[in-house]
Amino acid sequence: MANVSGLSPSQLRFIHAARVAHLATASLNSQPHVIPICFVFDGKHFYSPIDEKPKRGPAIRLKRLRNISENPMVAVVVDRYEEDWGRLGWVMLYGHADILAHGIEHDQAQALLGERYPQLATMQIAEHPVIAVRIARVSSWGNLSVAPPTPF
Amino acid sequence: MANVSGLSPSQLRFIHAARVAHLATASLNSQPHVIPICFVFDGKHFYSPIDEKPKRGPAIRLKRLRNISENPMVAVVVDRYEEDWGRLGWVMLYGHADILAHGIEHDQAQALLGERYPQLATMQIAEHPVIAVRIARVSSWGNLSVAPPTPF
Repeated sequence: MANVSGLSPSQLRFIHAARVAHLATASLNSQPHVIPICFVFDGKHFYSPIDEKPKRGPAIRLKRLRNISENPMVAVVVDRYEEDWGRLGWVMLYGHADILAHGIEHDQAQALLGERYPQLATMQIAEHPVIAVRIARVSSWGNLSVAPPTPF
Repeated sequence: MANVSGLSPSQLRFIHAARVAHLATASLNSQPHVIPICFVFDGKHFYSPIDEKPKRGPAIRLKRLRNISENPMVAVVVDRYEEDWGRLGWVMLYGHADILAHGIEHDQAQALLGERYPQLATMQIAEHPVIAVRIARVSSWGNLSVAPPTPF
């Protein structure tokens, strides 16, 4: 998995270890919006599926996509909260988002997401769009160390 | 603790049970920013401290405050991620943010934050500003049930 995005090894490990991120978008009149997302990072681009959870209303889904359509600038944060604040840390990615409706990159992203989240297997999302974040800038803070697996 | 914000009891319980939230701001030119925050919700307003962690650079802190100064519109999400996606849920608050530098509300918010986060006690933040979010709109999704405490 090539790292062509300028992230450090510790930033990369921190991102790969996380299961949820937060995506912020903004409307053209600068009203922010933020939502938790599942994601995969292929070493260059950051992908998040548009899922189809039964309880999620269309307005919510559309808000995220509508914002990206009118203003592709986004911010993504991957962070860790623990009660030991010496373990707090985050990696922030700034960039612009594309909405991939189909094509090779869309299909590859769907495959990576499916590998990472078995939960997606039952959700029939293969034909749904994927948000791709093209990273322009990265910053991070705090403790990014990822604990090694507990030995047997 | 009065609920004068229009939140439902389940939304309130979900917020009170969470230890971290995510605050999204946007610059005047609609560049979003998102950061994890500790917080307290007093039933009406949502407060987050400006802390002074040694490793946090001034630019990061200022970005959040600079965005709010030029564009007070914010979004806050309180959410839960678990591998059982039947347990996913979030509450989203839209509103505008004030930066409280001093005064009665500032001091009350600092006291509430100190009760909720013992970690703040060593951080000398009492004289620092507090972000206050005035809630204009609430939405939520998913499973907001908060598990009862495990019996002995």
